[in-house]
Amino acid sequence: MQIIGESINSNIPATGKAIQSRDASFLAQLAREQRDAGADMLDICAAAAGVNEIEVLPWLVQLVQAEVDTPLVLDSLNAQALEAALAVCQRRVIINSLSDEERRWQELLPLVVGHRCGAIVMCMGSAGIPDTAQGRLSLAQKLVARALRAGIAPHDLYLDPLVMSLGANWQAGKVTLETLRLIHQSLPEVHTICAISNVSFGLPRRRLLNASFLAMAVAMGVDTLLVNVCDKTVMATLWAANVAAGNDKSCLTYLKGYRAGRLG
Amino acid sequence: MQIIGESINSNIPATGKAIQSRDASFLAQLAREQRDAGADMLDICAAAAGVNEIEVLPWLVQLVQAEVDTPLVLDSLNAQALEAALAVCQRRVIINSLSDEERRWQELLPLVVGHRCGAIVMCMGSAGIPDTAQGRLSLAQKLVARALRAGIAPHDLYLDPLVMSLGANWQAGKVTLETLRLIHQSLPEVHTICAISNVSFGLPRRRLLNASFLAMAVAMGVDTLLVNVCDKTVMATLWAANVAAGNDKSCLTYLKGYRAGRLG
Repeated sequence: MQIIGESINSNIPATGKAIQSRDASFLAQLAREQRDAGADMLDICAAAAGVNEIEVLPWLVQLVQAEVDTPLVLDSLNAQALEAALAVCQRRVIINSLSDEERRWQELLPLVVGHRCGAIVMCMGSAGIPDTAQGRLSLAQKLVARALRAGIAPHDLYLDPLVMSLGANWQAGKVTLETLRLIHQSLPEVHTICAISNVSFGLPRRRLLNASFLAMAVAMGVDTLLVNVCDKTVMATLWAANVAAGNDKSCLTYLKGYRAGRLG
Repeated sequence: MQIIGESINSNIPATGKAIQSRDASFLAQLAREQRDAGADMLDICAAAAGVNEIEVLPWLVQLVQAEVDTPLVLDSLNAQALEAALAVCQRRVIINSLSDEERRWQELLPLVVGHRCGAIVMCMGSAGIPDTAQGRLSLAQKLVARALRAGIAPHDLYLDPLVMSLGANWQAGKVTLETLRLIHQSLPEVHTICAISNVSFGLPRRRLLNASFLAMAVAMGVDTLLVNVCDKTVMATLWAANVAAGNDKSCLTYLKGYRAGRLG
């Protein structure tokens, strides 16, 4: 299981403010805290109104890589900003994200191939997000085939089945879980990734719902998660889910977390 | 989803003491509390050292059915005790449990058929519990076929994939979950049942593990659970899991639980 820390994102109010005011010490601390809390990779997103991504994304990359050794997930649809960030980046990079939208594919694919990056690939087409798991799988198969033809290795692909709000559609979770299972079965050589917390948007007791959905996604074979690693409930749930799904050999990580007082 | 309250069980120290001392008011309250907390059925187990099941089981049945209207799950391997309990029982009954052990089958099957009971059927043979999900499925298929030949309806069968301790075998959860999935796929007309809390036996932070495993079992399609319904964490997790898995139409039960202050 690989964990991506989600907190360096301009859409989170405190982080957005720090990015706008170029508060390097706040952002450096955010990078260190996430690594210390168990992040294997850090997501970096500077896309927001009033931010010049072409300047800010490379600035953030330099700032973060001076603090921590983890790979970086560059969360941007701005090819120029990504190009500038990749030019200064000395870490393994995953680009977030490709989809079946032709423009996105045309602009971002050359960067993924040219810089030998990983790529998050959303199960989303130009006509939107398929309603069914089978529809999302078909899209995933098409996109993976296209990526492989372009020379991307299967283990550099992170398929995102898309996690939608249960508040908007009470069957959204079931479709995502079934998509995960089908991708795992049909495309075993690629990674799968979920951003869990979307599932509870608009509903009460979000942590309770997130914990259940996280456990279910782990049971369906998801191997990469984008989460708030500084939320102790999330990480404790993740360690427990890995034990329950048989991913934690001899329960060692869980017991280590317990002894360190990190299971709540 | 059907919930069986597990608390009227002589192996739980306080309940065992109440059964030994024939404390009818304690036991009647336990029945009412479980019904009020959301139990659809109540398990009744009087099997313990020093207890004459043939006397005690019918006494418990009469006591419980005077308090609540729910169906009863009679948890006994003593055919005489079951016979005596069935003679006084005016509720729908599920017998807990059959397995591939020949003696158990010979003694309990006539009661199930004769009294048109439901039956919990464990995926356990005379040679023990198969290590693999495929082994447990094969046993389930054999036992279901045998039960159907004896005249039991498929919807009267509750297949138990067996939940074992992760502390004893860190891959135990994975095998149980995969067995659930295979039974659901291969024998869609029968019920599946789990006793969740066994999974965390011997490990710290049992509730954390139980919650993750419960969510995973719900995602794999389990439709009947044996739980401590008076534990608010368990019930909140169950309601959340039903939302996350798409079992709670328009999230109505979850939102009702929230408004009633029952989600913690």
